[in-house]
Amino acid sequence: MTSKCPVKAKCIEKANSAEYTITMCRHGESEWNEKNLFCGWFNANLSRKGHLEAKKAGIAIRDENLKFDVAYASVLKRSQDTLRHILLESNQSTIPIHTTWRLNERHYGGLTGQNKLEAVETFGEEQVAIWRRSFDTPPPEMTEEHPYYDAIVNDPIYNNGPPKERFPKTESLKLCIERSMPFWYDVIIPQLKAGKSIMIAAHGNSLRGIVKNLERMTAEQIMNLNLPTGIPFQYKLDGLFKPIGTMRFLGDPETVKRAIEDVANQTKKK
Amino acid sequence: MTSKCPVKAKCIEKANSAEYTITMCRHGESEWNEKNLFCGWFNANLSRKGHLEAKKAGIAIRDENLKFDVAYASVLKRSQDTLRHILLESNQSTIPIHTTWRLNERHYGGLTGQNKLEAVETFGEEQVAIWRRSFDTPPPEMTEEHPYYDAIVNDPIYNNGPPKERFPKTESLKLCIERSMPFWYDVIIPQLKAGKSIMIAAHGNSLRGIVKNLERMTAEQIMNLNLPTGIPFQYKLDGLFKPIGTMRFLGDPETVKRAIEDVANQTKKK
Repeated sequence: MTSKCPVKAKCIEKANSAEYTITMCRHGESEWNEKNLFCGWFNANLSRKGHLEAKKAGIAIRDENLKFDVAYASVLKRSQDTLRHILLESNQSTIPIHTTWRLNERHYGGLTGQNKLEAVETFGEEQVAIWRRSFDTPPPEMTEEHPYYDAIVNDPIYNNGPPKERFPKTESLKLCIERSMPFWYDVIIPQLKAGKSIMIAAHGNSLRGIVKNLERMTAEQIMNLNLPTGIPFQYKLDGLFKPIGTMRFLGDPETVKRAIEDVANQTKKK
Repeated sequence: MTSKCPVKAKCIEKANSAEYTITMCRHGESEWNEKNLFCGWFNANLSRKGHLEAKKAGIAIRDENLKFDVAYASVLKRSQDTLRHILLESNQSTIPIHTTWRLNERHYGGLTGQNKLEAVETFGEEQVAIWRRSFDTPPPEMTEEHPYYDAIVNDPIYNNGPPKERFPKTESLKLCIERSMPFWYDVIIPQLKAGKSIMIAAHGNSLRGIVKNLERMTAEQIMNLNLPTGIPFQYKLDGLFKPIGTMRFLGDPETVKRAIEDVANQTKKK
Protein backbone atom coordinates (compact mmCIF):
# COMPACT_ATOMS: atom_id res chain seq x y z
CA MET A 1 0.00 0.00 0.00
CA THR A 2 1.26 3.43 -0.87
CA SER A 3 -0.06 6.82 0.10
CA LYS A 4 0.22 10.11 -1.69
CA CYS A 5 0.37 12.00 1.60
CA PRO A 6 4.02 11.96 2.72
CA VAL A 7 3.07 12.32 6.39
CA LYS A 8 0.70 9.36 6.17
CA ALA A 9 3.29 7.37 4.23
CA LYS A 10 5.79 8.03 7.01
CA CYS A 11 3.23 6.96 9.59
CA ILE A 12 2.59 3.70 7.75
CA GLU A 13 6.31 3.08 7.45
CA LYS A 14 6.81 3.76 11.15
CA ALA A 15 3.85 1.57 12.03
CA ASN A 16 5.27 -1.41 10.18
CA SER A 17 8.72 -1.52 11.74
CA ALA A 18 9.47 -2.64 15.27
CA GLU A 19 10.81 0.42 17.00
CA TYR A 20 10.57 -0.39 20.66
CA THR A 21 10.78 -3.35 23.03
CA ILE A 22 9.31 -3.49 26.50
CA THR A 23 9.80 -6.32 28.99
CA MET A 24 7.51 -6.89 31.95
CA CYS A 25 7.10 -9.43 34.71
CA ARG A 26 4.42 -10.16 37.28
CA HIS A 27 6.00 -10.75 40.72
CA GLY A 28 6.44 -14.26 42.11
CA GLU A 29 4.16 -15.75 44.75
CA SER A 30 3.93 -13.75 47.99
CA GLU A 31 3.53 -15.11 51.51
CA TRP A 32 -0.06 -13.85 51.38
CA ASN A 33 -0.80 -15.48 48.00
CA GLU A 34 0.50 -18.66 49.62
CA LYS A 35 -2.01 -18.26 52.45
CA ASN A 36 -4.79 -17.36 50.02
CA LEU A 37 -5.30 -13.88 51.53
CA PHE A 38 -6.44 -10.78 49.66
CA CYS A 39 -3.20 -8.79 49.61
CA GLY A 40 -3.59 -5.63 47.52
CA TRP A 41 -1.65 -2.77 49.10
CA PHE A 42 -0.41 -4.79 52.08
CA ASN A 43 3.36 -5.05 51.76
CA ALA A 44 3.77 -8.85 51.90
CA ASN A 45 7.09 -10.60 51.30
CA LEU A 46 7.72 -13.03 48.48
CA SER A 47 7.28 -16.62 49.64
CA ARG A 48 10.18 -19.05 49.15
CA LYS A 49 8.45 -20.24 45.97
CA GLY A 50 8.12 -16.59 44.92
CA HIS A 51 11.86 -16.03 45.40
CA LEU A 52 12.53 -19.09 43.23
CA GLU A 53 10.13 -17.91 40.53
CA ALA A 54 11.83 -14.52 40.46
CA LYS A 55 15.29 -16.09 40.14
CA LYS A 56 14.03 -18.24 37.28
CA ALA A 57 12.73 -15.10 35.60
CA GLY A 58 16.19 -13.58 35.98
CA ILE A 59 17.84 -16.63 34.46
CA ALA A 60 15.48 -16.35 31.47
CA ILE A 61 16.52 -12.69 31.04
CA ARG A 62 20.19 -13.67 31.38
CA ASP A 63 19.88 -16.46 28.84
CA GLU A 64 18.33 -14.06 26.30
CA ASN A 65 21.16 -11.65 27.08
CA LEU A 66 18.65 -8.85 27.59
CA LYS A 67 20.14 -5.61 28.89
CA PHE A 68 18.06 -2.82 30.37
CA ASP A 69 18.87 0.87 30.85
CA VAL A 70 16.32 1.44 33.55
CA ALA A 71 13.81 -0.62 35.53
CA TYR A 72 10.53 0.11 37.27
CA ALA A 73 8.62 -1.54 40.08
CA SER A 74 5.73 -0.64 42.34
CA VAL A 75 6.45 0.58 45.87
CA LEU A 76 5.53 -2.90 47.13
CA LYS A 77 8.43 -5.09 48.20
CA ARG A 78 7.27 -8.20 46.34
CA SER A 79 7.57 -6.43 42.98
CA GLN A 80 10.89 -4.83 43.92
CA ASP A 81 12.34 -8.13 45.14
CA THR A 82 11.24 -9.81 41.91
CA LEU A 83 12.99 -7.04 39.98
CA ARG A 84 16.12 -7.32 42.15
CA HIS A 85 16.35 -11.07 41.56
CA ILE A 86 15.93 -10.51 37.82
CA LEU A 87 18.66 -7.87 37.70
CA LEU A 88 21.02 -9.85 39.95
CA GLU A 89 20.71 -13.07 37.98
CA SER A 90 21.28 -11.21 34.73
CA ASN A 91 24.29 -9.30 36.11
CA GLN A 92 22.77 -5.84 35.77
CA SER A 93 22.01 -5.07 39.40
CA THR A 94 23.41 -1.55 39.25
CA ILE A 95 21.01 -0.01 36.70
CA PRO A 96 18.68 2.65 38.10
CA ILE A 97 15.45 1.38 39.66
CA HIS A 98 12.47 3.69 40.04
CA THR A 99 9.38 2.84 42.02
CA THR A 100 5.85 4.20 41.90
CA TRP A 101 2.58 3.55 43.69
CA ARG A 102 0.88 3.76 40.30
CA LEU A 103 2.19 0.27 39.51
CA ASN A 104 0.81 -1.13 42.81
CA GLU A 105 -1.55 -4.05 42.91
CA ARG A 106 -5.27 -3.31 42.93
CA HIS A 107 -6.37 -2.08 46.40
CA TYR A 108 -8.76 -4.72 47.77
CA GLY A 109 -10.38 -2.40 50.33
CA GLY A 110 -12.04 -4.12 53.27
CA LEU A 111 -11.14 -7.53 51.87
CA THR A 112 -7.42 -6.89 52.49
CA GLY A 113 -6.00 -9.54 54.80
CA GLN A 114 -9.10 -11.75 54.53
CA ASN A 115 -8.75 -15.35 53.57
CA LYS A 116 -10.53 -15.80 50.26
CA LEU A 117 -12.64 -18.64 51.69
CA GLU A 118 -13.50 -16.62 54.79
CA ALA A 119 -14.60 -13.75 52.58
CA VAL A 120 -17.03 -16.14 50.90
CA GLU A 121 -18.39 -17.12 54.32
CA THR A 122 -18.72 -13.49 55.42
CA PHE A 123 -20.15 -11.94 52.29
CA GLY A 124 -21.54 -14.92 50.40
CA GLU A 125 -20.17 -16.56 47.28
CA GLU A 126 -22.13 -14.45 44.87
CA GLN A 127 -20.99 -11.13 46.33
CA VAL A 128 -17.32 -12.14 46.43
CA ALA A 129 -17.58 -13.38 42.85
CA ILE A 130 -18.93 -9.97 41.83
CA TRP A 131 -16.03 -8.15 43.51
CA ARG A 132 -13.50 -10.47 41.95
CA ARG A 133 -14.99 -10.70 38.48
CA SER A 134 -16.65 -7.36 37.98
CA PHE A 135 -14.65 -4.77 36.10
CA ASP A 136 -16.05 -1.76 37.86
CA THR A 137 -17.58 -2.83 41.19
CA PRO A 138 -15.05 -2.17 43.97
CA PRO A 139 -15.08 -4.20 47.21
CA PRO A 140 -16.20 -2.35 50.37
CA GLU A 141 -13.89 0.45 51.48
CA MET A 142 -11.10 -0.12 53.99
CA THR A 143 -12.18 1.84 57.07
CA GLU A 144 -9.94 3.28 59.78
CA GLU A 145 -10.92 0.34 62.00
CA HIS A 146 -9.51 -2.17 59.53
CA PRO A 147 -6.61 -4.12 61.12
CA TYR A 148 -4.24 -3.12 58.28
CA TYR A 149 -5.43 0.47 57.83
CA ASP A 150 -2.55 2.06 59.76
CA ALA A 151 0.11 -0.28 58.43
CA ILE A 152 -0.87 0.69 54.89
CA VAL A 153 -1.85 4.37 55.10
CA ASN A 154 1.12 5.35 57.27
CA ASP A 155 3.70 3.21 55.51
CA PRO A 156 6.64 5.46 54.50
CA ILE A 157 6.62 3.77 51.08
CA TYR A 158 3.71 6.16 50.33
CA ASN A 159 5.67 9.30 51.18
CA ASN A 160 5.82 10.12 47.46
CA GLY A 161 2.15 9.51 46.83
CA PRO A 162 -0.69 9.06 46.45
CA PRO A 163 -1.69 12.28 48.24
CA LYS A 164 -3.41 11.58 51.59
CA GLU A 165 -6.68 13.12 50.45
CA ARG A 166 -6.77 10.83 47.44
CA PHE A 167 -5.37 7.71 49.06
CA PRO A 168 -7.47 4.81 47.73
CA LYS A 169 -9.76 3.04 50.17
CA THR A 170 -10.69 0.37 47.63
CA GLU A 171 -10.36 -0.19 43.89
CA SER A 172 -12.22 -1.98 41.15
CA LEU A 173 -10.05 -3.32 38.35
CA LYS A 174 -11.23 -0.29 36.37
CA LEU A 175 -10.00 2.15 39.04
CA CYS A 176 -6.71 0.28 39.33
CA ILE A 177 -6.13 0.55 35.58
CA GLU A 178 -7.10 4.22 35.55
CA ARG A 179 -4.48 5.15 38.13
CA SER A 180 -1.82 2.91 36.58
CA MET A 181 -2.02 4.21 33.02
CA PRO A 182 -0.72 7.75 33.61
CA PHE A 183 2.55 6.07 34.52
CA TRP A 184 2.63 4.32 31.14
CA TYR A 185 1.95 7.51 29.21
CA ASP A 186 3.97 9.95 31.31
CA VAL A 187 7.03 7.83 32.07
CA ILE A 188 7.33 4.68 29.97
CA ILE A 189 6.43 6.09 26.54
CA PRO A 190 8.85 9.06 26.85
CA GLN A 191 11.61 6.70 28.03
CA LEU A 192 10.99 4.35 25.11
CA LYS A 193 11.09 7.36 22.75
CA ALA A 194 14.42 8.32 24.32
CA GLY A 195 15.75 4.92 23.23
CA LYS A 196 15.79 3.32 26.67
CA SER A 197 15.50 -0.41 27.13
CA ILE A 198 13.00 -0.94 29.96
CA MET A 199 12.02 -3.63 32.44
CA ILE A 200 8.87 -3.36 34.56
CA ALA A 201 8.17 -5.67 37.49
CA ALA A 202 4.68 -5.20 38.85
CA HIS A 203 1.41 -6.90 39.74
CA GLY A 204 -1.34 -8.91 38.09
CA ASN A 205 -3.76 -6.00 37.88
CA SER A 206 -1.45 -3.05 37.15
CA LEU A 207 0.10 -5.08 34.33
CA ARG A 208 -3.38 -5.94 33.09
CA GLY A 209 -3.85 -2.21 32.58
CA ILE A 210 -0.83 -1.98 30.32
CA VAL A 211 -1.73 -5.15 28.41
CA LYS A 212 -5.37 -4.07 27.97
CA ASN A 213 -4.24 -0.78 26.59
CA LEU A 214 -1.60 -2.21 24.26
CA GLU A 215 -3.83 -4.96 22.92
CA ARG A 216 -6.99 -2.80 22.91
CA MET A 217 -8.86 -5.42 24.92
CA THR A 218 -12.38 -5.09 26.22
CA ALA A 219 -13.11 -5.18 29.97
CA GLU A 220 -14.26 -8.77 29.58
CA GLN A 221 -11.14 -9.82 27.69
CA ILE A 222 -8.74 -8.38 30.24
CA MET A 223 -10.66 -9.88 33.16
CA ASN A 224 -10.23 -13.29 31.59
CA LEU A 225 -6.48 -12.84 31.26
CA ASN A 226 -4.45 -14.02 34.27
CA LEU A 227 -0.82 -13.19 33.61
CA PRO A 228 1.48 -15.97 34.84
CA THR A 229 3.60 -15.10 37.90
CA GLY A 230 7.36 -14.82 37.54
CA ILE A 231 7.49 -15.32 33.77
CA PRO A 232 8.85 -12.27 31.94
CA PHE A 233 7.04 -11.25 28.77
CA GLN A 234 7.93 -8.92 26.00
CA TYR A 235 6.20 -6.79 23.42
CA LYS A 236 7.73 -5.43 20.26
CA LEU A 237 6.04 -2.13 19.51
CA ASP A 238 5.88 -0.21 16.26
CA GLY A 239 6.65 3.49 15.97
CA LEU A 240 3.12 4.28 17.09
CA PHE A 241 3.43 2.05 20.19
CA LYS A 242 1.18 -0.66 18.83
CA PRO A 243 2.28 -4.25 19.47
CA ILE A 244 3.74 -6.24 16.60
CA GLY A 245 2.44 -9.75 17.29
CA THR A 246 1.39 -11.02 20.70
CA MET A 247 3.25 -11.00 23.99
CA ARG A 248 6.30 -13.24 23.96
CA PHE A 249 7.12 -15.20 27.11
CA LEU A 250 10.75 -15.71 28.13
CA GLY A 251 11.99 -18.85 29.81
CA ASP A 252 12.86 -22.45 29.26
CA PRO A 253 10.78 -24.12 26.51
CA GLU A 254 8.50 -25.95 28.95
CA THR A 255 7.72 -22.85 31.02
CA VAL A 256 7.01 -20.83 27.88
CA LYS A 257 4.80 -23.57 26.42
CA ARG A 258 2.75 -23.75 29.62
CA ALA A 259 2.38 -19.97 29.78
CA ILE A 260 1.22 -19.77 26.17
CA GLU A 261 -1.31 -22.57 26.69
CA ASP A 262 -2.65 -21.01 29.90
CA VAL A 263 -3.15 -17.65 28.27
CA ALA A 264 -4.70 -19.25 25.16
CA ASN A 265 -7.17 -21.24 27.31
CA GLN A 266 -8.18 -18.12 29.20
CA THR A 267 -8.83 -16.25 26.00
CA LYS A 268 -10.88 -19.18 24.65
CA LYS A 269 -13.18 -19.23 27.70
CA LYS A 270 -14.67 -15.81 27.01
CA MET B 1 38.08 -8.86 90.06
CA THR B 2 37.04 -5.58 91.58
CA SER B 3 38.56 -2.16 91.25
CA LYS B 4 38.52 0.74 93.62
CA CYS B 5 38.41 3.25 90.80
CA PRO B 6 34.74 3.61 89.79
CA VAL B 7 35.65 4.61 86.21
CA LYS B 8 37.89 1.58 85.83
CA ALA B 9 35.21 -0.62 87.42
CA LYS B 10 32.72 0.65 84.86
CA CYS B 11 35.21 -0.03 82.09
CA ILE B 12 35.72 -3.58 83.28
CA GLU B 13 31.99 -4.10 83.53
CA LYS B 14 31.49 -2.75 80.03
CA ALA B 15 34.36 -4.83 78.73
CA ASN B 16 32.84 -8.04 80.04
CA SER B 17 29.40 -7.74 78.52
CA ALA B 18 28.59 -8.18 74.83
CA GLU B 19 27.32 -4.83 73.67
CA TYR B 20 27.54 -4.96 69.93
CA THR B 21 27.27 -7.45 67.11
CA ILE B 22 28.74 -7.02 63.65
CA THR B 23 28.19 -9.35 60.71
CA MET B 24 30.47 -9.43 57.68
CA CYS B 25 30.83 -11.47 54.52
CA ARG B 26 33.51 -11.78 51.85
CA HIS B 27 31.92 -11.74 48.37
CA GLY B 28 31.41 -14.92 46.37
CA GLU B 29 33.67 -15.99 43.51
CA SER B 30 33.94 -13.45 40.68
CA GLU B 31 34.35 -14.16 36.97
CA TRP B 32 37.95 -13.04 37.32
CA ASN B 33 38.66 -15.25 40.35
CA GLU B 34 37.29 -18.06 38.21
CA LYS B 35 39.82 -17.23 35.47
CA ASN B 36 42.62 -16.83 38.03
CA LEU B 37 43.20 -13.16 37.14
CA PHE B 38 44.40 -10.46 39.54
CA CYS B 39 41.22 -8.43 39.93
CA GLY B 40 41.67 -5.70 42.55
CA TRP B 41 39.79 -2.58 41.51
CA PHE B 42 38.51 -4.00 38.22
CA ASN B 43 34.74 -4.23 38.49
CA ALA B 44 34.24 -7.94 37.69
CA ASN B 45 30.88 -9.68 37.97
CA LEU B 46 30.17 -12.55 40.32
CA SER B 47 30.53 -15.90 38.56
CA ARG B 48 27.59 -18.32 38.61
CA LYS B 49 29.29 -20.07 41.53
CA GLY B 50 29.68 -16.69 43.21
CA HIS B 51 25.96 -15.97 42.84
CA LEU B 52 25.20 -19.34 44.44
CA GLU B 53 27.64 -18.72 47.30
CA ALA B 54 26.00 -15.35 47.98
CA LYS B 55 22.51 -16.87 48.01
CA LYS B 56 23.71 -19.51 50.45
CA ALA B 57 25.08 -16.75 52.66
CA GLY B 58 21.66 -15.12 52.55
CA ILE B 59 19.94 -18.35 53.51
CA ALA B 60 22.30 -18.65 56.52
CA ILE B 61 21.33 -15.11 57.58
CA ARG B 62 17.64 -15.93 57.06
CA ASP B 63 17.89 -19.13 59.08
CA GLU B 64 19.49 -17.24 61.99
CA ASN B 65 16.70 -14.67 61.66
CA LEU B 66 19.28 -11.89 61.66
CA LYS B 67 17.87 -8.45 60.93
CA PHE B 68 20.01 -5.47 59.98
CA ASP B 69 19.30 -1.75 60.15
CA VAL B 70 21.86 -0.77 57.58
CA ALA B 71 24.33 -2.49 55.27
CA TYR B 72 27.61 -1.55 53.68
CA ALA B 73 29.52 -2.70 50.62
CA SER B 74 32.42 -1.49 48.55
CA VAL B 75 31.74 0.35 45.28
CA LEU B 76 32.58 -2.88 43.44
CA LYS B 77 29.64 -4.77 42.00
CA ARG B 78 30.73 -8.18 43.28
CA SER B 79 30.46 -7.04 46.89
CA GLN B 80 27.17 -5.22 46.26
CA ASP B 81 25.65 -8.22 44.48
CA THR B 82 26.70 -10.46 47.36
CA LEU B 83 25.01 -8.05 49.75
CA ARG B 84 21.88 -7.86 47.57
CA HIS B 85 21.58 -11.66 47.50
CA ILE B 86 21.99 -11.78 51.28
CA LEU B 87 19.31 -9.14 51.87
CA LEU B 88 16.92 -10.65 49.30
CA GLU B 89 17.16 -14.17 50.68
CA SER B 90 16.63 -12.90 54.20
CA ASN B 91 13.65 -10.72 53.19
CA GLN B 92 15.25 -7.40 54.12
CA SER B 93 16.05 -6.02 50.68
CA THR B 94 14.74 -2.55 51.45
CA ILE B 95 17.14 -1.54 54.24
CA PRO B 96 19.54 1.27 53.32
CA ILE B 97 22.75 0.24 51.56
CA HIS B 98 25.78 2.50 51.59
CA THR B 99 28.86 1.96 49.46
CA THR B 100 32.41 3.20 49.83
CA TRP B 101 35.68 2.80 47.92
CA ARG B 102 37.36 2.37 51.32
CA LEU B 103 35.98 -1.17 51.48
CA ASN B 104 37.34 -2.00 47.99
CA GLU B 105 39.63 -4.93 47.37
CA ARG B 106 43.38 -4.26 47.45
CA HIS B 107 44.51 -2.48 44.25
CA TYR B 108 46.85 -4.87 42.45
CA GLY B 109 48.52 -2.18 40.34
CA GLY B 110 50.17 -3.39 37.13
CA LEU B 111 49.19 -6.98 37.92
CA THR B 112 45.47 -6.16 37.44
CA GLY B 113 43.99 -8.35 34.71
CA GLN B 114 47.05 -10.61 34.56
CA ASN B 115 46.63 -14.32 34.90
CA LYS B 116 48.41 -15.39 38.07
CA LEU B 117 50.46 -17.99 36.17
CA GLU B 118 51.37 -15.48 33.46
CA ALA B 119 52.51 -13.05 36.14
CA VAL B 120 54.89 -15.76 37.38
CA GLU B 121 56.24 -16.16 33.84
CA THR B 122 56.65 -12.40 33.38
CA PHE B 123 58.11 -11.44 36.73
CA GLY B 124 59.43 -14.72 38.09
CA GLU B 125 58.02 -16.86 40.87
CA GLU B 126 60.03 -15.23 43.61
CA GLN B 127 58.96 -11.68 42.74
CA VAL B 128 55.26 -12.59 42.49
CA ALA B 129 55.50 -14.45 45.80
CA ILE B 130 56.92 -11.29 47.40
CA TRP B 131 54.04 -9.16 46.06
CA ARG B 132 51.47 -11.67 47.19
CA ARG B 133 52.93 -12.53 50.57
CA SER B 134 54.67 -9.37 51.63
CA PHE B 135 52.71 -7.11 53.92
CA ASP B 136 54.18 -3.86 52.72
CA THR B 137 55.67 -4.36 49.26
CA PRO B 138 53.18 -3.17 46.64
CA PRO B 139 53.17 -4.60 43.10
CA PRO B 140 54.36 -2.26 40.29
CA GLU B 141 52.11 0.75 39.71
CA MET B 142 49.33 0.69 37.15
CA THR B 143 50.49 3.14 34.45
CA GLU B 144 48.28 5.09 32.03
CA GLU B 145 49.19 2.56 29.34
CA HIS B 146 47.71 -0.31 31.32
CA PRO B 147 44.78 -1.89 29.43
CA TYR B 148 42.40 -1.35 32.40
CA TYR B 149 43.68 2.07 33.49
CA ASP B 150 40.86 4.07 31.85
CA ALA B 151 38.13 1.59 32.75
CA ILE B 152 39.12 1.89 36.42
CA VAL B 153 40.20 5.52 36.86
CA ASN B 154 37.25 6.93 34.90
CA ASP B 155 34.62 4.59 36.25
CA PRO B 156 31.73 6.68 37.63
CA ILE B 157 31.69 4.41 40.71
CA TYR B 158 34.64 6.57 41.86
CA ASN B 159 32.76 9.86 41.56
CA ASN B 160 32.61 10.02 45.38
CA GLY B 161 36.27 9.23 45.90
CA PRO B 162 39.10 8.63 46.18
CA PRO B 163 40.19 12.10 44.97
CA LYS B 164 41.91 11.96 41.56
CA GLU B 165 45.23 13.18 42.93
CA ARG B 166 45.24 10.40 45.53
CA PHE B 167 43.75 7.65 43.37
CA PRO B 168 45.78 4.53 44.16
CA LYS B 169 48.04 3.16 41.44
CA THR B 170 48.89 0.07 43.48
CA GLU B 171 48.56 -1.13 47.05
CA SER B 172 50.35 -3.43 49.46
CA LEU B 173 48.14 -5.18 51.99
CA LYS B 174 49.38 -2.57 54.46
CA LEU B 175 48.22 0.33 52.26
CA CYS B 176 44.88 -1.40 51.66
CA ILE B 177 44.28 -1.79 55.38
CA GLU B 178 45.35 1.81 56.07
CA ARG B 179 42.76 3.24 53.69
CA SER B 180 40.03 0.81 54.84
CA MET B 181 40.25 1.46 58.55
CA PRO B 182 39.04 5.09 58.60
CA PHE B 183 35.73 3.66 57.43
CA TRP B 184 35.61 1.34 60.43
CA TYR B 185 36.35 4.14 62.90
CA ASP B 186 34.39 6.96 61.24
CA VAL B 187 31.28 5.06 60.14
CA ILE B 188 30.91 1.61 61.66
CA ILE B 189 31.84 2.37 65.28
CA PRO B 190 29.48 5.40 65.51
CA GLN B 191 26.66 3.35 63.92
CA LEU B 192 27.24 0.51 66.41
CA LYS B 193 27.21 3.06 69.23
CA ALA B 194 23.90 4.34 67.87
CA GLY B 195 22.49 0.85 68.36
CA LYS B 196 22.42 -0.13 64.68
CA SER B 197 22.62 -3.75 63.57
CA ILE B 198 25.11 -3.80 60.70
CA MET B 199 26.04 -6.05 57.78
CA ILE B 200 29.21 -5.46 55.74
CA ALA B 201 29.86 -7.25 52.45
CA ALA B 202 33.35 -6.62 51.19
CA HIS B 203 36.59 -8.21 50.00
CA GLY B 204 39.29 -10.54 51.25
CA ASN B 205 41.77 -7.77 51.98
CA SER B 206 39.55 -4.94 53.21
CA LEU B 207 37.92 -7.39 55.64
CA ARG B 208 41.39 -8.54 56.71
CA GLY B 209 41.94 -4.97 57.85
CA ILE B 210 38.91 -5.08 60.12
CA VAL B 211 39.75 -8.55 61.46
CA LYS B 212 43.42 -7.66 62.05
CA ASN B 213 42.34 -4.63 64.00
CA LEU B 214 39.67 -6.40 66.05
CA GLU B 215 41.84 -9.39 66.88
CA ARG B 216 45.04 -7.35 67.26
CA MET B 217 46.85 -9.60 64.83
CA THR B 218 50.39 -9.14 63.61
CA ALA B 219 51.11 -8.57 59.90
CA GLU B 220 52.20 -12.18 59.64
CA GLN B 221 49.06 -13.50 61.32
CA ILE B 222 46.69 -11.58 59.08
CA MET B 223 48.58 -12.57 55.92
CA ASN B 224 48.07 -16.20 56.86
CA LEU B 225 44.34 -15.75 57.28
CA ASN B 226 42.28 -16.30 54.13
CA LEU B 227 38.68 -15.54 54.93
CA PRO B 228 36.30 -18.01 53.26
CA THR B 229 34.21 -16.57 50.38
CA GLY B 230 30.47 -16.27 50.78
CA ILE B 231 30.31 -17.41 54.41
CA PRO B 232 29.01 -14.72 56.75
CA PHE B 233 30.83 -14.30 60.04
CA GLN B 234 29.99 -12.47 63.18
CA TYR B 235 31.76 -10.86 66.09
CA LYS B 236 30.27 -10.06 69.44
CA LEU B 237 32.03 -6.98 70.75
CA ASP B 238 32.22 -5.67 74.28
CA GLY B 239 31.54 -2.07 75.21
CA LEU B 240 35.10 -1.17 74.24
CA PHE B 241 34.71 -2.81 70.80
CA LYS B 242 36.91 -5.76 71.67
CA PRO B 243 35.73 -9.17 70.42
CA ILE B 244 34.22 -11.61 72.89
CA GLY B 245 35.44 -14.95 71.60
CA THR B 246 36.47 -15.62 68.02
CA MET B 247 34.61 -14.97 64.79
CA ARG B 248 31.52 -17.14 64.42
CA PHE B 249 30.66 -18.48 60.98
CA LEU B 250 27.03 -18.72 59.90
CA GLY B 251 25.71 -21.50 57.69
CA ASP B 252 24.76 -25.12 57.59
CA PRO B 253 26.82 -27.29 60.01
CA GLU B 254 29.06 -28.71 57.30
CA THR B 255 29.91 -25.31 55.79
CA VAL B 256 30.65 -23.90 59.24
CA LYS B 257 32.81 -26.89 60.19
CA ARG B 258 34.85 -26.54 56.99
CA ALA B 259 35.29 -22.80 57.51
CA ILE B 260 36.47 -23.27 61.09
CA GLU B 261 38.93 -25.99 60.08
CA ASP B 262 40.28 -23.92 57.19
CA VAL B 263 40.86 -20.91 59.39
CA ALA B 264 42.38 -23.07 62.15
CA ASN B 265 44.78 -24.69 59.67
CA GLN B 266 45.87 -21.33 58.36
CA THR B 267 46.56 -20.07 61.84
CA LYS B 268 48.54 -23.23 62.62
CA LYS B 269 50.83 -22.77 59.59
CA LYS B 270 52.36 -19.53 60.82
